[in-house]
Amino acid sequence: MEEAVGLGAVTVLAVLEQAYFSLQVIYARRKYSVSPPTTSGPPEFERVFRAQANCSEYFPIFVTLLWISGVFFNQGLSSVCGLLYLYGRLRYFWGYSVSAKGRLAPLYFSSQILWVLIGFSSIGVLLMFSQVYLNVDLLQELGSALGLS
Amino acid sequence: MEEAVGLGAVTVLAVLEQAYFSLQVIYARRKYSVSPPTTSGPPEFERVFRAQANCSEYFPIFVTLLWISGVFFNQGLSSVCGLLYLYGRLRYFWGYSVSAKGRLAPLYFSSQILWVLIGFSSIGVLLMFSQVYLNVDLLQELGSALGLS
Amino acid sequence: MEEAVGLGAVTVLAVLEQAYFSLQVIYARRKYSVSPPTTSGPPEFERVFRAQANCSEYFPIFVTLLWISGVFFNQGLSSVCGLLYLYGRLRYFWGYSVSAKGRLAPLYFSSQILWVLIGFSSIGVLLMFSQVYLNVDLLQELGSALGLS
Repeated sequence: MEEAVGLGAVTVLAVLEQAYFSLQVIYARRKYSVSPPTTSGPPEFERVFRAQANCSEYFPIFVTLLWISGVFFNQGLSSVCGLLYLYGRLRYFWGYSVSAKGRLAPLYFSSQILWVLIGFSSIGVLLMFSQVYLNVDLLQELGSALGLS
Repeated sequence: MEEAVGLGAVTVLAVLEQAYFSLQVIYARRKYSVSPPTTSGPPEFERVFRAQANCSEYFPIFVTLLWISGVFFNQGLSSVCGLLYLYGRLRYFWGYSVSAKGRLAPLYFSSQILWVLIGFSSIGVLLMFSQVYLNVDLLQELGSALGLS
Repeated sequence: MEEAVGLGAVTVLAVLEQAYFSLQVIYARRKYSVSPPTTSGPPEFERVFRAQANCSEYFPIFVTLLWISGVFFNQGLSSVCGLLYLYGRLRYFWGYSVSAKGRLAPLYFSSQILWVLIGFSSIGVLLMFSQVYLNVDLLQELGSALGLS
């Protein structure tokens, strides 16, 4: 797994970020006296709760894309996108904790990074698919078509 | 990863489907004027919200089973099941958006596909487990027992 | 994938446990007459619902850590931690179904196991990272520093 250690490192960071978010919900539950199983309370609590819920919901999608993109396309580019995404999520969580509006800019940023990872994953899978099943090296064909080789 | 490109393709499709569901929730939030962090509102909104939440909840379980079944059992069969599952989830989302009853038939269909993937995964892991740790090739043993070899 | 069959087996068990939790929510919906898309109702129902939601939320984090720790650190240790985690989650679900307090002890236990898996994953990724990118074998260096070799 030497060729995937960058993806592994970003994944561990992603888990640590989720752990941080979960702790913030526990603190918010104490601060605003909202005991489980209740999930509704003052808006201050609900924003923290929803911020963590939203990040949790996207965690598996992010990890899946990180690895598909890293394994089928390029590990370095995927790891960089991964770090940017985690940074965006941190700003999203902090922004949402302050106000519902504060979540928007970093949310758009994180979504854009996810779309980049979807693009990388699609390209990677498509290239390998045509190579394995159609016996066509699309990159080479593209190069020939453009007169590059 | 040539031998897993089919699983990669189905996984990318699964992410795109989740992206589609998320967009539908955003449209429903606008249509029924339900601003975050609120998650309750008219039943029309709540159905779309719950449909997406349910699909998100099952996304990691589905991706996990797809890959365990594909890697330990058979890539082709797992990929076909994966496509059927994604189709079932699409019909589930559309059905649930219309009425709570409309979600039932495609929900049962998706669940059955997941059970098939659980079966494939269990068989694949069991066969490899007995091969690696018990040094027994269960398929061969079964063949001998049935007088096939 | 012979070297990962233990992780595969624990993963299949984890999915089966989630299936069991989902069935309990369906039974609780029937028992307390809480029809989808509603998710609020008597505390008895809400506890079962939240117990399942919490386990679902942690499922992808658990599976991710199990595999990162198993692939980059040690499969045997990770699989044992995985089994302990699943046992802790079962006790958490049963405990939470009875009372909100009943969830606490097994929740702390499961969290501790996750932290152990985070530790294993971090060590494994760190060791391989320094080996691949810094060309330093940290374990050997540590041994030399301690005068062990």
